[in-house]
Amino acid sequence: MRREGIALVISAPSGTGKTTLIHRLRGEFPSFGYSVSCTTRQPRRGEVDGRDYTFLSREEFERRRALDCFAEWAEVHGNLYGTPLAPVERMLREGLDVIFDIDVQGARQIKLSLSAAVFVFVLPPDMEKLEQRLRLRGLDDEADIECRLARARVEMAQAGWYDALVVNDRLDAAYDALRAVYLAGTLAPARNPRLVESIVKGLPWRS
Amino acid sequence: MRREGIALVISAPSGTGKTTLIHRLRGEFPSFGYSVSCTTRQPRRGEVDGRDYTFLSREEFERRRALDCFAEWAEVHGNLYGTPLAPVERMLREGLDVIFDIDVQGARQIKLSLSAAVFVFVLPPDMEKLEQRLRLRGLDDEADIECRLARARVEMAQAGWYDALVVNDRLDAAYDALRAVYLAGTLAPARNPRLVESIVKGLPWRS
Repeated sequence: MRREGIALVISAPSGTGKTTLIHRLRGEFPSFGYSVSCTTRQPRRGEVDGRDYTFLSREEFERRRALDCFAEWAEVHGNLYGTPLAPVERMLREGLDVIFDIDVQGARQIKLSLSAAVFVFVLPPDMEKLEQRLRLRGLDDEADIECRLARARVEMAQAGWYDALVVNDRLDAAYDALRAVYLAGTLAPARNPRLVESIVKGLPWRS
Repeated sequence: MRREGIALVISAPSGTGKTTLIHRLRGEFPSFGYSVSCTTRQPRRGEVDGRDYTFLSREEFERRRALDCFAEWAEVHGNLYGTPLAPVERMLREGLDVIFDIDVQGARQIKLSLSAAVFVFVLPPDMEKLEQRLRLRGLDDEADIECRLARARVEMAQAGWYDALVVNDRLDAAYDALRAVYLAGTLAPARNPRLVESIVKGLPWRS
Protein backbone atom coordinates (compact mmCIF):
# COMPACT_ATOMS: atom_id res chain seq x y z
CA MET A 1 0.00 0.00 0.00
CA ARG A 2 1.44 3.31 -1.10
CA ARG A 3 0.27 6.74 -0.10
CA GLU A 4 -1.34 8.95 -2.72
CA GLY A 5 0.70 11.66 -4.36
CA ILE A 6 0.63 15.32 -3.46
CA ALA A 7 0.29 18.25 -5.84
CA LEU A 8 2.63 20.95 -4.55
CA VAL A 9 1.98 24.38 -6.03
CA ILE A 10 4.79 26.90 -5.64
CA SER A 11 4.48 30.57 -6.56
CA ALA A 12 7.03 33.33 -6.11
CA PRO A 13 8.04 36.63 -7.68
CA SER A 14 10.95 36.11 -10.09
CA GLY A 15 14.28 36.57 -8.35
CA THR A 16 13.09 34.91 -5.14
CA GLY A 17 15.12 31.74 -5.60
CA LYS A 18 12.14 29.48 -6.28
CA THR A 19 13.90 27.47 -8.99
CA THR A 20 16.84 26.64 -6.71
CA LEU A 21 14.45 25.53 -3.95
CA ILE A 22 12.47 23.29 -6.30
CA HIS A 23 15.64 21.76 -7.72
CA ARG A 24 16.78 20.90 -4.21
CA LEU A 25 13.41 19.36 -3.30
CA ARG A 26 13.46 17.15 -6.41
CA GLY A 27 17.02 16.19 -5.55
CA GLU A 28 16.16 15.05 -2.02
CA PHE A 29 12.87 13.28 -2.81
CA PRO A 30 12.69 10.85 -5.74
CA SER A 31 8.90 10.74 -5.43
CA PHE A 32 8.27 13.63 -7.82
CA GLY A 33 7.07 12.86 -11.32
CA TYR A 34 7.30 15.16 -14.32
CA SER A 35 4.29 16.38 -16.21
CA VAL A 36 4.61 17.43 -19.86
CA SER A 37 2.84 20.67 -20.70
CA CYS A 38 0.94 21.35 -23.90
CA THR A 39 1.69 24.40 -26.01
CA THR A 40 0.66 25.95 -29.29
CA ARG A 41 4.07 27.50 -29.96
CA GLN A 42 6.42 26.07 -32.56
CA PRO A 43 8.98 23.49 -31.36
CA ARG A 44 12.48 24.92 -30.96
CA ARG A 45 15.50 23.11 -32.36
CA GLY A 46 16.12 19.91 -30.37
CA GLU A 47 12.72 19.90 -28.63
CA VAL A 48 10.93 16.56 -28.81
CA ASP A 49 7.12 16.35 -28.98
CA GLY A 50 5.79 14.49 -25.92
CA ARG A 51 9.03 14.96 -23.97
CA ASP A 52 9.66 18.72 -23.78
CA TYR A 53 6.10 19.69 -24.66
CA THR A 54 3.09 18.21 -26.35
CA PHE A 55 2.85 20.50 -29.36
CA LEU A 56 -0.73 21.21 -30.38
CA SER A 57 -2.43 23.33 -33.00
CA ARG A 58 -4.38 26.26 -31.60
CA GLU A 59 -7.61 24.53 -32.66
CA GLU A 60 -6.72 21.33 -30.84
CA PHE A 61 -5.62 23.25 -27.71
CA GLU A 62 -8.88 25.21 -27.67
CA ARG A 63 -10.93 22.06 -28.18
CA ARG A 64 -9.27 20.43 -25.17
CA ARG A 65 -9.58 23.58 -23.11
CA ALA A 66 -13.32 23.67 -23.85
CA LEU A 67 -13.50 20.09 -22.51
CA ASP A 68 -11.79 21.22 -19.27
CA CYS A 69 -8.82 18.96 -19.98
CA PHE A 70 -6.28 21.35 -18.42
CA ALA A 71 -5.44 21.71 -14.71
CA GLU A 72 -4.43 25.26 -15.66
CA TRP A 73 -3.66 27.17 -18.84
CA ALA A 74 -2.39 30.61 -19.83
CA GLU A 75 -1.58 32.68 -22.90
CA VAL A 76 1.97 34.04 -23.03
CA HIS A 77 3.22 36.20 -25.93
CA GLY A 78 0.34 34.97 -28.10
CA ASN A 79 0.96 31.26 -27.43
CA LEU A 80 -1.18 28.99 -25.28
CA TYR A 81 0.35 26.77 -22.59
CA GLY A 82 -1.47 24.28 -20.38
CA THR A 83 -0.97 21.38 -17.98
CA PRO A 84 -3.15 18.42 -18.98
CA LEU A 85 -5.14 17.16 -15.99
CA ALA A 86 -5.34 13.42 -16.78
CA PRO A 87 -1.61 12.54 -16.50
CA VAL A 88 -1.33 14.60 -13.29
CA GLU A 89 -4.28 12.80 -11.74
CA ARG A 90 -2.82 9.44 -12.80
CA MET A 91 0.54 10.26 -11.17
CA LEU A 92 -1.17 11.33 -7.94
CA ARG A 93 -3.23 8.12 -7.83
CA GLU A 94 -0.06 6.07 -8.37
CA GLY A 95 1.68 7.84 -5.48
CA LEU A 96 3.88 10.18 -7.47
CA ASP A 97 4.05 13.81 -6.35
CA VAL A 98 3.74 16.69 -8.82
CA ILE A 99 5.23 20.17 -8.53
CA PHE A 100 3.52 23.14 -10.15
CA ASP A 101 5.93 26.03 -10.55
CA ILE A 102 3.37 28.65 -11.42
CA ASP A 103 2.15 32.23 -10.95
CA VAL A 104 -0.78 33.27 -8.77
CA GLN A 105 -3.31 33.16 -11.60
CA GLY A 106 -2.29 29.62 -12.52
CA ALA A 107 -2.34 28.61 -8.85
CA ARG A 108 -5.94 29.84 -8.58
CA GLN A 109 -6.92 27.60 -11.48
CA ILE A 110 -5.24 24.62 -9.80
CA LYS A 111 -7.14 25.41 -6.60
CA LEU A 112 -10.28 24.71 -8.64
CA SER A 113 -9.06 21.68 -10.61
CA LEU A 114 -7.01 19.96 -7.85
CA SER A 115 -8.48 21.24 -4.60
CA ALA A 116 -6.36 18.94 -2.39
CA ALA A 117 -3.15 20.54 -3.66
CA VAL A 118 -0.81 22.23 -1.17
CA PHE A 119 0.03 25.87 -1.96
CA VAL A 120 3.31 27.53 -1.01
CA PHE A 121 4.25 31.14 -1.66
CA VAL A 122 7.97 31.99 -1.56
CA LEU A 123 8.68 35.58 -0.47
CA PRO A 124 11.84 37.69 -0.71
CA PRO A 125 13.16 38.95 2.67
CA ASP A 126 12.59 42.53 1.47
CA MET A 127 12.07 44.43 -1.76
CA GLU A 128 15.64 45.82 -1.82
CA LYS A 129 17.08 42.30 -1.78
CA LEU A 130 14.69 41.27 -4.54
CA GLU A 131 15.80 44.25 -6.64
CA GLN A 132 19.47 43.38 -6.00
CA ARG A 133 18.90 39.77 -7.07
CA LEU A 134 17.16 40.84 -10.27
CA ARG A 135 20.09 43.18 -11.08
CA LEU A 136 22.67 40.49 -10.29
CA ARG A 137 20.99 38.06 -12.71
CA GLY A 138 21.64 40.65 -15.42
CA LEU A 139 18.71 39.45 -17.53
CA ASP A 140 16.56 42.58 -17.32
CA ASP A 141 16.96 46.26 -18.23
CA GLU A 142 15.81 49.07 -15.90
CA ALA A 143 12.24 49.11 -17.20
CA ASP A 144 11.95 45.31 -16.90
CA ILE A 145 13.14 45.46 -13.30
CA GLU A 146 10.58 48.15 -12.46
CA CYS A 147 7.92 46.00 -14.04
CA ARG A 148 9.02 42.84 -12.20
CA LEU A 149 8.99 44.65 -8.84
CA ALA A 150 5.50 46.01 -9.45
CA ARG A 151 4.34 42.53 -10.52
CA ALA A 152 5.98 41.08 -7.37
CA ARG A 153 4.02 43.46 -5.11
CA VAL A 154 0.75 42.60 -6.85
CA GLU A 155 1.36 38.84 -6.58
CA MET A 156 2.55 39.03 -2.97
CA ALA A 157 -0.65 40.84 -2.01
CA GLN A 158 -2.49 37.62 -2.93
CA ALA A 159 -0.30 35.28 -0.87
CA GLY A 160 -2.86 35.20 1.95
CA TRP A 161 -4.87 32.32 0.52
CA TYR A 162 -1.83 30.03 0.18
CA ASP A 163 -1.25 27.31 2.78
CA ALA A 164 2.26 28.43 3.68
CA LEU A 165 4.52 31.47 3.39
CA VAL A 166 8.23 30.74 3.03
CA VAL A 167 10.62 33.69 3.28
CA ASN A 168 13.82 33.04 1.33
CA ASP A 169 16.26 34.99 3.47
CA ARG A 170 18.81 32.26 4.06
CA LEU A 171 18.53 29.45 1.51
CA ASP A 172 18.98 26.59 4.02
CA ALA A 173 16.20 27.84 6.30
CA ALA A 174 13.89 28.47 3.33
CA TYR A 175 14.56 24.98 2.01
CA ASP A 176 13.90 23.47 5.44
CA ALA A 177 10.55 25.28 5.49
CA LEU A 178 9.54 24.24 1.95
CA ARG A 179 10.56 20.65 2.71
CA ALA A 180 8.46 20.74 5.90
CA VAL A 181 5.36 21.89 4.01
CA TYR A 182 5.86 19.10 1.48
CA LEU A 183 6.46 16.40 4.12
CA ALA A 184 3.54 17.56 6.27
CA GLY A 185 1.33 17.38 3.18
CA THR A 186 2.29 13.77 2.53
CA LEU A 187 1.18 12.84 6.08
CA ALA A 188 -2.49 13.86 5.70
CA PRO A 189 -4.88 10.95 6.40
CA ALA A 190 -6.59 11.53 3.03
CA ARG A 191 -3.30 10.70 1.31
CA ASN A 192 -2.81 7.57 3.43
CA PRO A 193 -6.29 6.09 3.21
CA ARG A 194 -5.60 2.56 4.45
CA LEU A 195 -2.61 3.24 6.72
CA VAL A 196 -4.31 2.84 10.10
CA GLU A 197 -6.30 -0.19 8.99
CA SER A 198 -3.12 -1.83 7.65
CA ILE A 199 -1.28 -1.28 10.93
CA VAL A 200 -4.14 -2.66 13.04
CA LYS A 201 -4.59 -5.70 10.77
CA GLY A 202 -0.88 -6.34 10.33
CA LEU A 203 -0.92 -5.70 6.57
CA PRO A 204 2.13 -4.19 4.82
CA TRP A 205 1.89 -0.40 4.51
CA ARG A 206 5.37 0.71 3.54
CA SER A 207 5.78 2.10 0.04
CA MET B 1 6.47 41.72 14.35
CA ARG B 2 6.34 38.13 15.57
CA ARG B 3 4.23 35.35 14.20
CA GLU B 4 1.39 33.98 16.32
CA GLY B 5 1.90 30.79 18.26
CA ILE B 6 0.67 27.38 17.20
CA ALA B 7 -1.23 24.89 19.34
CA LEU B 8 0.16 21.46 18.46
CA VAL B 9 -2.02 18.58 19.62
CA ILE B 10 -0.32 15.18 19.74
CA SER B 11 -2.15 11.93 20.42
CA ALA B 12 -0.76 8.41 20.41
CA PRO B 13 -1.40 5.04 22.03
CA SER B 14 0.91 4.55 25.01
CA GLY B 15 4.13 2.83 24.02
CA THR B 16 4.35 4.65 20.68
CA GLY B 17 7.26 6.88 21.68
CA LYS B 18 5.25 10.10 21.81
CA THR B 19 7.01 11.43 24.92
CA THR B 20 10.46 11.01 23.35
CA LEU B 21 9.29 12.81 20.19
CA ILE B 22 7.83 15.72 22.16
CA HIS B 23 10.95 16.03 24.28
CA ARG B 24 13.06 16.26 21.14
CA LEU B 25 10.77 18.89 19.60
CA ARG B 26 10.95 21.06 22.73
CA GLY B 27 14.73 20.59 22.70
CA GLU B 28 15.12 21.82 19.12
CA PHE B 29 12.64 24.72 19.26
CA PRO B 30 12.75 27.16 22.18
CA SER B 31 9.43 28.65 21.08
CA PHE B 32 7.28 26.30 23.17
CA GLY B 33 5.71 27.62 26.35
CA TYR B 34 4.45 25.53 29.25
CA SER B 35 0.86 25.59 30.41
CA VAL B 36 0.00 24.69 33.99
CA SER B 37 -3.00 22.37 34.31
CA CYS B 38 -5.66 22.61 36.99
CA THR B 39 -6.55 19.60 39.12
CA THR B 40 -8.78 18.69 42.03
CA ARG B 41 -6.40 16.03 43.34
CA GLN B 42 -4.30 16.64 46.46
CA PRO B 43 -0.78 18.04 45.94
CA ARG B 44 1.95 15.41 46.29
CA ARG B 45 5.04 16.05 48.39
CA GLY B 46 7.21 18.70 46.69
CA GLU B 47 4.53 19.86 44.24
CA VAL B 48 4.10 23.62 44.13
CA ASP B 49 0.71 25.22 43.48
CA GLY B 50 0.84 27.28 40.27
CA ARG B 51 4.02 25.56 39.08
CA ASP B 52 3.24 21.83 38.88
CA TYR B 53 -0.52 22.28 38.93
CA THR B 54 -3.07 24.84 39.96
CA PHE B 55 -4.80 22.96 42.78
CA LEU B 56 -8.51 23.66 42.93
CA SER B 57 -11.40 22.44 45.04
CA ARG B 58 -13.95 20.38 43.15
CA GLU B 59 -16.46 23.22 43.55
CA GLU B 60 -14.08 25.78 42.08
CA PHE B 61 -13.12 23.44 39.21
CA GLU B 62 -16.77 22.81 38.38
CA ARG B 63 -17.57 26.53 38.56
CA ARG B 64 -14.81 27.30 36.05
CA ARG B 65 -15.82 24.38 33.86
CA ALA B 66 -19.39 25.72 33.76
CA LEU B 67 -17.95 29.04 32.54
CA ASP B 68 -16.12 27.19 29.69
CA CYS B 69 -12.75 28.22 31.13
CA PHE B 70 -11.00 25.00 30.06
CA ALA B 71 -9.58 24.18 26.64
CA GLU B 72 -10.17 20.57 27.63
CA TRP B 73 -10.86 18.65 30.83
CA ALA B 74 -11.21 15.03 31.95
CA GLU B 75 -11.90 12.97 35.06
CA VAL B 76 -9.21 10.41 35.90
CA HIS B 77 -9.50 8.08 38.91
CA GLY B 78 -12.11 10.37 40.43
CA ASN B 79 -10.06 13.56 40.07
CA LEU B 80 -10.69 16.36 37.60
CA TYR B 81 -7.90 17.70 35.39
CA GLY B 82 -8.15 20.59 32.93
CA THR B 83 -6.12 22.98 30.80
CA PRO B 84 -7.21 26.59 31.41
CA LEU B 85 -7.90 28.35 28.11
CA ALA B 86 -6.87 31.92 28.98
CA PRO B 87 -3.11 31.35 29.55
CA VAL B 88 -2.93 29.19 26.41
CA GLU B 89 -4.59 31.89 24.34
CA ARG B 90 -2.28 34.50 25.82
CA MET B 91 0.81 32.44 24.92
CA LEU B 92 -0.43 31.93 21.35
CA ARG B 93 -1.09 35.66 20.93
CA GLU B 94 2.42 36.42 22.22
CA GLY B 95 3.96 34.02 19.69
CA LEU B 96 4.65 31.12 22.02
CA ASP B 97 3.71 27.64 20.82
CA VAL B 98 1.84 25.19 23.03
CA ILE B 99 1.96 21.39 22.94
CA PHE B 100 -1.05 19.34 24.03
CA ASP B 101 -0.01 15.76 24.79
CA ILE B 102 -3.48 14.33 25.01
CA ASP B 103 -5.80 11.43 24.14
CA VAL B 104 -8.38 11.47 21.34
CA GLN B 105 -11.23 12.62 23.59
CA GLY B 106 -9.18 15.57 24.84
CA ALA B 107 -8.10 16.36 21.30
CA ARG B 108 -11.74 16.54 20.22
CA GLN B 109 -12.41 19.10 22.92
CA ILE B 110 -9.43 21.18 21.75
CA LYS B 111 -10.76 21.01 18.18
CA LEU B 112 -13.78 22.91 19.54
CA SER B 113 -11.97 25.36 21.84
CA LEU B 114 -8.90 26.06 19.66
CA SER B 115 -10.02 25.30 16.12
CA ALA B 116 -6.77 26.55 14.52
CA ALA B 117 -4.72 23.93 16.39
CA VAL B 118 -2.71 21.40 14.37
CA PHE B 119 -3.47 17.74 15.17
CA VAL B 120 -0.90 14.96 14.88
CA PHE B 121 -1.51 11.28 15.57
CA VAL B 122 1.56 9.12 16.21
CA LEU B 123 1.11 5.48 15.16
CA PRO B 124 3.14 2.37 15.96
CA PRO B 125 4.58 0.56 12.90
CA ASP B 126 2.49 -2.51 13.81
CA MET B 127 0.64 -3.94 16.79
CA GLU B 128 3.34 -6.54 17.54
CA LYS B 129 5.97 -3.80 17.94
CA LEU B 130 3.58 -1.86 20.18
CA GLU B 131 3.05 -4.94 22.35
CA GLN B 132 6.83 -5.52 22.52
CA ARG B 133 7.41 -1.92 23.58
CA LEU B 134 4.77 -2.12 26.31
CA ARG B 135 6.39 -5.33 27.63
CA LEU B 136 9.88 -3.82 27.49
CA ARG B 137 8.74 -0.85 29.60
CA GLY B 138 7.80 -3.38 32.29
CA LEU B 139 5.14 -1.07 33.76
CA ASP B 140 2.09 -3.20 33.00
CA ASP B 141 0.92 -6.72 33.83
CA GLU B 142 -0.67 -9.02 31.21
CA ALA B 143 -4.21 -7.69 31.72
CA ASP B 144 -3.01 -4.07 31.50
CA ILE B 145 -1.21 -4.79 28.23
CA GLU B 146 -4.36 -6.40 26.77
CA CYS B 147 -6.32 -3.35 27.83
CA ARG B 148 -3.76 -0.90 26.39
CA LEU B 149 -3.73 -2.72 23.03
CA ALA B 150 -7.53 -2.67 22.85
CA ARG B 151 -7.52 1.04 23.76
CA ALA B 152 -4.84 1.65 21.10
CA ARG B 153 -6.99 0.08 18.38
CA VAL B 154 -10.01 2.14 19.42
CA GLU B 155 -8.03 5.39 19.45
CA MET B 156 -6.24 4.63 16.16
CA ALA B 157 -9.61 4.09 14.48
CA GLN B 158 -10.28 7.80 15.11
CA ALA B 159 -6.99 9.08 13.66
CA GLY B 160 -8.68 9.98 10.37
CA TRP B 161 -9.75 13.46 11.48
CA TYR B 162 -6.22 14.48 12.53
CA ASP B 163 -4.14 16.67 10.22
CA ALA B 164 -1.18 14.31 10.04
CA LEU B 165 -0.33 10.66 10.68
CA VAL B 166 3.24 9.99 11.85
CA VAL B 167 4.35 6.35 11.98
CA ASN B 168 7.07 5.85 14.58
CA ASP B 169 9.01 3.06 12.94
CA ARG B 170 12.46 4.62 13.02
CA LEU B 171 12.70 7.45 15.55
CA ASP B 172 14.69 9.83 13.32
CA ALA B 173 12.20 9.59 10.47
CA ALA B 174 9.26 9.98 12.85
CA TYR B 175 10.86 13.05 14.42
CA ASP B 176 11.55 14.54 10.99
CA ALA B 177 7.86 14.09 10.17
CA LEU B 178 6.58 15.58 13.44
CA ARG B 179 8.98 18.50 13.07
CA ALA B 180 7.72 19.06 9.50
CA VAL B 181 4.10 19.22 10.65
CA TYR B 182 5.06 21.73 13.34
CA LEU B 183 7.15 23.91 11.00
CA ALA B 184 4.54 23.82 8.24
CA GLY B 185 1.95 24.93 10.79
CA THR B 186 4.02 27.96 11.77
CA LEU B 187 4.10 29.08 8.10
CA ALA B 188 0.33 29.51 7.66
CA PRO B 189 -0.61 33.06 6.58
CA ALA B 190 -3.08 33.30 9.50
CA ARG B 191 -0.15 32.92 11.91
CA ASN B 192 1.88 35.56 10.06
CA PRO B 193 -0.76 38.23 9.59
CA ARG B 194 1.45 41.19 8.68
CA LEU B 195 4.37 39.38 7.09
CA VAL B 196 3.69 40.24 3.43
CA GLU B 197 2.77 43.83 4.20
CA SER B 198 5.96 44.22 6.26
CA ILE B 199 8.13 42.91 3.43
CA VAL B 200 6.50 45.15 0.83
CA LYS B 201 6.72 48.23 3.06
CA GLY B 202 10.22 47.48 4.33
CA LEU B 203 9.15 47.07 7.95
CA PRO B 204 10.98 44.62 10.22
CA TRP B 205 9.30 41.20 10.31
CA ARG B 206 11.84 38.93 11.98
CA SER B 207 10.96 37.61 15.40
